[in-house]
Formats: sequence, C-alpha cells, structure tokens
Amino acid sequence: MSTTHPDLVHALRGSSVESFHRGAIAISDAAGTLSLALGDVDRPIFSRSACKLLQALPLVASGAADALGLTDEELAIACASHGGEARHAATAAGLLAKAGLDVTALECGAHWPYHDGALKALARAGGEPSALHNNCSGKHAGFVCVGCLMARAAGREPAEFLRGYVRPEHPVMREVSAALAAATGADLANAPVGTDGCSIPTYAIPLRQLAHGFARVATGVGLRDDHARAARRLRQAVAAAPFMVAGSGRFDTRVMELLGERVCCKVGAEGVYCAALPDQGLGVAIKIDDGNNARAAEVVMAAVIEALVALSDDERAVLRGLSDLPLRNWNGIAVGALQASTGLRQALAAAAPG
Amino acid sequence: MSTTHPDLVHALRGSSVESFHRGAIAISDAAGTLSLALGDVDRPIFSRSACKLLQALPLVASGAADALGLTDEELAIACASHGGEARHAATAAGLLAKAGLDVTALECGAHWPYHDGALKALARAGGEPSALHNNCSGKHAGFVCVGCLMARAAGREPAEFLRGYVRPEHPVMREVSAALAAATGADLANAPVGTDGCSIPTYAIPLRQLAHGFARVATGVGLRDDHARAARRLRQAVAAAPFMVAGSGRFDTRVMELLGERVCCKVGAEGVYCAALPDQGLGVAIKIDDGNNARAAEVVMAAVIEALVALSDDERAVLRGLSDLPLRNWNGIAVGALQASTGLRQALAAAAPG
Repeated sequence: MSTTHPDLVHALRGSSVESFHRGAIAISDAAGTLSLALGDVDRPIFSRSACKLLQALPLVASGAADALGLTDEELAIACASHGGEARHAATAAGLLAKAGLDVTALECGAHWPYHDGALKALARAGGEPSALHNNCSGKHAGFVCVGCLMARAAGREPAEFLRGYVRPEHPVMREVSAALAAATGADLANAPVGTDGCSIPTYAIPLRQLAHGFARVATGVGLRDDHARAARRLRQAVAAAPFMVAGSGRFDTRVMELLGERVCCKVGAEGVYCAALPDQGLGVAIKIDDGNNARAAEVVMAAVIEALVALSDDERAVLRGLSDLPLRNWNGIAVGALQASTGLRQALAAAAPG
Repeated sequence: MSTTHPDLVHALRGSSVESFHRGAIAISDAAGTLSLALGDVDRPIFSRSACKLLQALPLVASGAADALGLTDEELAIACASHGGEARHAATAAGLLAKAGLDVTALECGAHWPYHDGALKALARAGGEPSALHNNCSGKHAGFVCVGCLMARAAGREPAEFLRGYVRPEHPVMREVSAALAAATGADLANAPVGTDGCSIPTYAIPLRQLAHGFARVATGVGLRDDHARAARRLRQAVAAAPFMVAGSGRFDTRVMELLGERVCCKVGAEGVYCAALPDQGLGVAIKIDDGNNARAAEVVMAAVIEALVALSDDERAVLRGLSDLPLRNWNGIAVGALQASTGLRQALAAAAPG
C-alpha cells in the first residue's frame, strides 16, 4: 500500500506496546471542508455497514415508514448491525409482518447471533439460527418494506417483485444506492464494488466523501428535502432505541444510550466507522488499515467523541473508559490496555472547536 | 512505532484491497544466521503461546514424561492452544490424573471452548466451561506434572507445592522460563514482561532470537543434550497427534496432519507464529503488527512453508489454498480473498534454498 498511516491505537501488555493499529480519519463539515485528515482520506474504502443509515433513507423518504406505521425500534433496526438477541430477531420479524411478509423474504443469509449470550441461549434451546439472527436482518427488512411499496404502486405481487432485491440492478437496490450516492457525492457507477457479507453491493468511497455525507446527515444541509427529513427521523429513532442498532454491551448502543441525539455512530465491518455529530455539524469517517473493529475502530471513535462533543464530567469518564480500556485475562488479572495513541489525541485536540 | 513494516497480507473484496496486515519475519539457522529478516526483527515481541513447545521442554527433560508414562497425545496437548473440544478436555484431565491431581490444580482460569461446535455442544448440554476447556489447559497440566515431580523429590505435598505455580518466582515457572531463555538465548531477566491470558509470565523476545530458538529445536544444535532430546520427542509427539495441538479445522492441526514432522508450527496470541523446519534446519518467527492471527499470521506461515519446505504437488495445492484463501459470505457467495502479498512472496523466494 502506498501511504503509511499513523498508528492510532496501541494494545499494551504490561507497559509495553504489544500490537498497534494504523488507519485514517476524515472529519468534515457539511460544506465538505475537512477539519481533520489523518492518513490517506482519498483512497476508496468499502463503507460496509457503517453507511446503513444512508441506505435506510429511502425507507422513510419513500413514505414506506409512514404508510406502515414503523416505530422508533423498527427504524433503528433498519440501520442496525445487531447482535441477534431475541428482541432483535422479534423486531425484524415484526417489521416484515407490517409489510405482509416473513423471514422467507430475506436474502441476507443466516448466521448464529453475534451476541455471545444469545448464541448460547439459542444453542441451549436446541435451536438453529435463521436470517432473522443475521446482523443485517433489520436493514434487509427495511429494504423489503421499500420493495413492497414499489410493488404495490406497480400492481405487482410483493414477494415476486422482491426476489433478487440484493442485486445492484434491482429497483430497490438502485434506490438504496442512489441515496448513498446523493449523500456522499460519490460516483458509484465508477467506484470499486464488492459484495457485502449480506449479499448486497458495497461500494468503495473515500473517507473524505463518507465524512461529508455524515455531516450532511448531521445537518440536513446539502441533502434533498425528503432525505434531510428522513435523516433527521432516523437519527431520532436510533437515539430513542439504541439497543436496536447494536445490542447489549455494544459500543454504538452504549454511546447512544449515554449521549442520545448528540452522537449518531455506526460501526461497519473491516474497521470502518462513521458518525454524525449534529451539535458540531460534523461528519466522521474512520478506516483501520487492518480491518479491526472492536478494539481499534471503537477506541478511535471514543477518542473522537471525547475531543469533539461537549460532555459532562461523568460522560467524559465513560468515554475515557472506552478510549483507554483496561484488558483483563481469564482470571480477571489486569494485563494491559487498549489506548488511543498520543498522536491521535494530539491531532484531535488540534481539530477540536474552540 | 518507529519502523514501518511491509504489508504481508492483503484482504481483497472483489478485486480491491480492502484491508491489509503489516508485520515482520525472521528466518534463522541454528548458528543464528538469518536467511530472511523482513521488518524490525530486533524489537522485543511477546512470544505468547507460540513458544509453548519451548516451555514444555522441562516436562520431558525433567524425566516427568517418562516417569508418568505420557503418550504422544498428552505431550502434544502440553504444547497446545486447543479448541476445548471434548477430546482436548478429556486428554488434559487424563494428564492431570497421571500426576494424581485434577482440574482444581489448574490456575489458567476457565473460558468457553474456542471451537465453535464444542461451544454449542457444551451450551446445548446445559454445561459451563471449566479450566479444562481453557486453550492452555494442556500446557498447565504439563506444568503440574513437572511440579509434582519436584514436590516428591523435596518430600512436599504436590497440591500445596504447586499453589501459585503461575508466578514467575515459583520453582516450576523458573524451570520453564530457564528453558525458554536457554533455547532463544534471550536475557529474560532484562526483557519486558507481561502476564499472559492464562496468567503465566510472557516475555518479549526479538523475532531474531525466537527464530534462532526454533532452529535449535529443529536441529538440536546449540541446545543442552536433555533439551535437544526433549525437543525431538515433543516434535515427534505433535506430529503424531496434531489434533491435540489445536483442533478440528485449525491451521496447525491441518498443516501437521499433512506434513508430519517436516513442519512443527505453533500459533500464539496477537499475531505471533513460530515454526521449526527440521529438514531445512531453520526456525521461523512471525509477528503481525496488529495482532491478527487467523487471517494474517496463518496466511504468512502458509506462504513461508510453500517457499521453504519440499512439497509434493498435492501438498503445495493445500498450502496455496491457505496462503491465497477464498472468502465467502453468509450465502456462500465468493466475495474476496486473503492473499500473501507479492512483496512477501518475492522476499521468501529470495530466501529459499537452492
């Protein structure tokens, strides 16, 4: 790879750096002006699940959410990478039921719940996972709702119309990709494209444009009116039902339970993280070179929030516990820490308002 | 971090590099001459579980293995990071029973099996994990055997003598650390030290010295006679019982099932990998900067074996499938690959014999 990125996170064992994570960050306002660019922010990177809120814009903008009477929980799970806990699976099933369909409409594939307790509970009950446990089931259920509205408008049978909705050329996916392109300004027709874990296309978009897109989500500035209203509605829904967007003990859930509408953050696979910071009018996009989410991208996002968002002392202490996280072994002995690097903290301090 | 390491592994999505892993490698002969040094091979790195075979030398050299009549399976599990499958837990329990002790002697802590099927089977049975499921239970059972012999020689009660055997100053751990120091030539008294996942000390040792240590294990050259015999016995045991050193579907097990005594490799936490190549008289030590084992260190080790070990066409095809590994999503669709980088392959080709 051409550019050497700064090390953003250190994994310490004792007092020594055992491993470290390099990566890049862009922080943008709604005009596209970067207040921070660490590393190569122009390399296209697959945005994966970090852009789910952008992919859910048509669910609200199309009128499907209102027509079906979707709740905050249902809108939040449409933006989620959830842990497959019982409430997640039930909420995704409920969303499908409102569209008059069921799990057989989902094309995301099945996998065991990511949430450890949910996986063991399912195994203890002698169960097997379905597509409802797939971390993307809510997003796909949202696609299904959009497709149902399209089918009815066209006088088509929904289940038949929806078949193959994960393909780039399907009308549902065209609408979803158009929303992503409009928000980020990316030329998706010429972007590198791959297939995501849940089988929809994923496009590679520079961090600069992802951050710009999330600044637009934060402010509504630069979005079509219907998308701006949809972005605001989705941000409110996720803040009102943060359990649905991730799950028990997960970073996105914890942060939004703590900070509500002040931060709208979303993890993606392979170390991608995006956030909208409405009070600051900023968007954030992070990519860890090596693709590590849980212990690298999250630590970076915690440090970003600490540096940029107005926090109480108690809130700051919680965030510091996520950006400087003690590590314990199987006997509960403190063995080290995950820490935002000094270089990252200095760069963020320089980019912070005031 | 001061040195920028080369990218060794690329994670591709579609035809684009989505994520990549940097790291360092040392390949040494028994005289300590390096045939390959990629990256900083002089930075001390925690060797973690990659050095378990060195830590098991006293189990054989002390006479404990012969006195207790240990089998190949029991010696192999003493060098293992196993998946906690039923046969692993039973073998570790059997090793403890030969010493007249049981699971209560283990100080490694309990965790759920790493092997997915074993975890679900335990949950389905309504069970909870014990220290026998800890991936290090066999290594600890080996320590317990060494301690029992020491206790009897000193006229002490074994269970009481063993208490606290994980501490650096305990006679058992002093013997284990002395074997590690002797094999690698490292000055452990002045090395950075941390606490490992299983609570024993882990020392930071340069890749150069780890590779040298494994070249000594490969050849016996430069080891004390009793350690040279022990190294040979342990290599034979692991080759005869490769399931025990890792488990179903795991890299170390697969490679040694395929290649027997021609490769003795062992993964460690945080992207460390060591191997002894007896036919070449070489030792290998790898560290991935970001600590990723499964998809980075293993890909590098597969590429190393491909380049250095004499292989049949069928064997070469298996190894190529591990160093250029297709990735599929939840629907089984091919979405990308994990590949040893061209730079790595070129460096290995230049270092290969002949």
